[in-house]
Amino acid sequence: MSDTGDDDRGSEELAAFEGSDIYADDGSVRSDFLMHVGAAIADRDTIYLRKHVAGLHASELGDLLEAIQPEQRLALVSLLGKEFDLAALTEVDEAIRLDIVEHLPNEQIAEAIGEMDSDDAVYILEDLDQEDQEEILAKLPFTERVRLRRSLDYPESTAGRRMQTEFVAVPPFWTVGQTIDYMREDDDLPESFTQIFVIDPTFKLLGTVDLDRVLRTKRSVKIDAIMRDTSHSVPAEMDQEEAAQLFEQYDLLSAAVVDDNGRLVGVLTIDDVVDVIQEEAEEDLLRLSGVGDEELSDSVAEASRSRVPWLFVNSMTACISASVIGLFDATIQQIVALAILMPIVAGMGGNAGSQTMTVTVRALATRGLDIHNAPRIIRREAGVGLLNGMIFGSFIGLVAGFWFQDVHIGGIIATAMLINMMAAALAGILIPLLLDKSGADPAVSSAVFVTAVTDITGFFSFLGIATWWFHVT
Amino acid sequence: MSDTGDDDRGSEELAAFEGSDIYADDGSVRSDFLMHVGAAIADRDTIYLRKHVAGLHASELGDLLEAIQPEQRLALVSLLGKEFDLAALTEVDEAIRLDIVEHLPNEQIAEAIGEMDSDDAVYILEDLDQEDQEEILAKLPFTERVRLRRSLDYPESTAGRRMQTEFVAVPPFWTVGQTIDYMREDDDLPESFTQIFVIDPTFKLLGTVDLDRVLRTKRSVKIDAIMRDTSHSVPAEMDQEEAAQLFEQYDLLSAAVVDDNGRLVGVLTIDDVVDVIQEEAEEDLLRLSGVGDEELSDSVAEASRSRVPWLFVNSMTACISASVIGLFDATIQQIVALAILMPIVAGMGGNAGSQTMTVTVRALATRGLDIHNAPRIIRREAGVGLLNGMIFGSFIGLVAGFWFQDVHIGGIIATAMLINMMAAALAGILIPLLLDKSGADPAVSSAVFVTAVTDITGFFSFLGIATWWFHVT
Repeated sequence: MSDTGDDDRGSEELAAFEGSDIYADDGSVRSDFLMHVGAAIADRDTIYLRKHVAGLHASELGDLLEAIQPEQRLALVSLLGKEFDLAALTEVDEAIRLDIVEHLPNEQIAEAIGEMDSDDAVYILEDLDQEDQEEILAKLPFTERVRLRRSLDYPESTAGRRMQTEFVAVPPFWTVGQTIDYMREDDDLPESFTQIFVIDPTFKLLGTVDLDRVLRTKRSVKIDAIMRDTSHSVPAEMDQEEAAQLFEQYDLLSAAVVDDNGRLVGVLTIDDVVDVIQEEAEEDLLRLSGVGDEELSDSVAEASRSRVPWLFVNSMTACISASVIGLFDATIQQIVALAILMPIVAGMGGNAGSQTMTVTVRALATRGLDIHNAPRIIRREAGVGLLNGMIFGSFIGLVAGFWFQDVHIGGIIATAMLINMMAAALAGILIPLLLDKSGADPAVSSAVFVTAVTDITGFFSFLGIATWWFHVT
Repeated sequence: MSDTGDDDRGSEELAAFEGSDIYADDGSVRSDFLMHVGAAIADRDTIYLRKHVAGLHASELGDLLEAIQPEQRLALVSLLGKEFDLAALTEVDEAIRLDIVEHLPNEQIAEAIGEMDSDDAVYILEDLDQEDQEEILAKLPFTERVRLRRSLDYPESTAGRRMQTEFVAVPPFWTVGQTIDYMREDDDLPESFTQIFVIDPTFKLLGTVDLDRVLRTKRSVKIDAIMRDTSHSVPAEMDQEEAAQLFEQYDLLSAAVVDDNGRLVGVLTIDDVVDVIQEEAEEDLLRLSGVGDEELSDSVAEASRSRVPWLFVNSMTACISASVIGLFDATIQQIVALAILMPIVAGMGGNAGSQTMTVTVRALATRGLDIHNAPRIIRREAGVGLLNGMIFGSFIGLVAGFWFQDVHIGGIIATAMLINMMAAALAGILIPLLLDKSGADPAVSSAVFVTAVTDITGFFSFLGIATWWFHVT
């Protein structure tokens, strides 16, 4: 996608900061470049900015926008004027994107969007409010408008929303020669592509041909002789995560997106899929530790809001575990060592549980865990719980026994640890599996339940066994 | 890569289980297909297996191998004989791959590897012991052997190890027409490609041309007129994660891999990069919850071994926190409510700390957090800690005050919560940042330190304030 950009830049003289030179060794934007840009913004030095900033790759410009001070961003955008590459906005945090888009005149957005790939255009349009969206769309040529509206009509996170509506499609009876001639002459081709689609007059998808196949084939050969079945075409309503899994499984570079009637409406490309894979992995990671939709550019209030729900649920389960301790207050008053040791039992169980839970949630997300191997994995986790329970039960039992010079306490904590590590293992695998089975996202709520199980089991087994034992003896 | 596979299959009659039909709606392999395959293995029904299994896509065959019983795997492979597609081994867990490869005759491996893309071949060879590796390499033609040895000589997890050594390269003075004619006539081209490299007679890389650019250009145009600078070529020694970041940033489909002298040695393709991205995301997730290199096919002993180190470190820090509680045993004996409530303070701190830590580790991994915005993010996290500390300090303070009908206890726990949530926020961001700065992987060890800080601060502040307060009043 950077062909034309490179060509434009080739004719200019860019000394210091061309290309990936804007990055320091650790991957951050170079400080001296930031200083120069900051000074140029302060001086309203549009010559410097046009020379060293306007020509940056969209993702470099995005990184620059994220690195400079918030108050410099709008100044930079307005100083660059029409030379500001709006594609950079697809590379920055949502908060920054909205801030900039709101300050740009709709005319400028419409003009830039007309020149963008449709997937980038949709990415920018979808966050705008209805009114601005309509105003911008109204300024676009008819076909462009229809295409963008169609993408925007598909629900968020579907292939239809992510697809690019520019593609190359030819009829099956054309020859390779005709196809090449068409590509040489048509000016309206997508910026870059790796596949040609074969369609009938109603746009029904018949097959695909990879470009290397076209290049290897003699001019006289018909397209339908070299096209492949499109067993991997993607329905426009398919969830983007599912589409990403198709790409991964079959090593696809692009895939045809078809509507309910099997008609070609767009193409999903691997670069968008890579973004989806990253987003989904990030989402799972954040969900697992109880963080909601959050971005680095969020304010204190926004970040706090994304984390309060999990902390709230957790404060509830913490109170329940505390009340379990309360059942044994008489025992604790007699033997304070129990109060000192009980967090070890609960904590180790919590850690063992979160290990199993993480492995399970990840395996569910990558479809490594399914009904065929679930029984084996459950048995394995139970085995790991038993083994690690015996290892750490004995170890902590010895430590506690020596610490308090009391063999009873050592034996009690060893038993409680063994019980809690087993409970942790079973909770760690069964809770995500059941949540997944019942249609909930196991990444979101597993941790609450697993911690609750290990805390309650830990306190109850340790204090319960101690109460029983010391009353018995 | 599945072109030829599809063509072969096209001529056969595959009724029930062709293509992606082997999957049920939830993405697992269909149970009835597994039953049929199991029965065919038991009956040594090679006709069924050749018809319905041999033609599967490598990744489908990989999923099938993972879904069937361990004892069926070797039987299936030996029944398929030469029709077993070894590329399926690049799609399964390491344990399964090694098990199968060890049981295959080296002749069969050598033959299959000779027909594979070099990156797949290296993927299978690298896990074998030196002796088998040499024996297999010795059976290969000279050029093949040299190429594979070169890849194997690069360290694990580098671009050189992941690259494919088959590529299309042309001199800059060729015309588009000559290039197309060459591709039409040469039988030795890679299975699929999206880019042509431009080299001088010493194999020094001069530029690249995307295939769509070749197809759009008139036959008489010289290659050097349409080639692009290769500002994104990848040194063979570059870490695969860094290479993956280049692909993401510049939306690359493939990149030239060059040696120290800038000579083209191979090509890194997006399908391998997608695998790298998945692996790295998985690694971060597992590391954060203290799981080592672990696969679903691991045994109880292997899985236990991957989790013991973190549990051990954690049992150490748990003992230290316990000894902090021990400092206040006299106070606890007087006021048992403190023992009941103290896990709430420590636990809520631990959760808040792990939220901040996860956000930080992820931002470091995706390079969203760097020296330019670190001060702002640290300030933000401190703000979030203060805000959430006030919210949950007041909430838990009220709950505890009513529970024990004691305004002092309510005030003390509220204060301790506020302190611990602030400590959690600072530990959650500063510990990963410092680990990263000192060259350690923040995903591996952050959690240990953060939990230690929140446990110790939680117990010390709550019990310490209580001791001071009740002694004073």
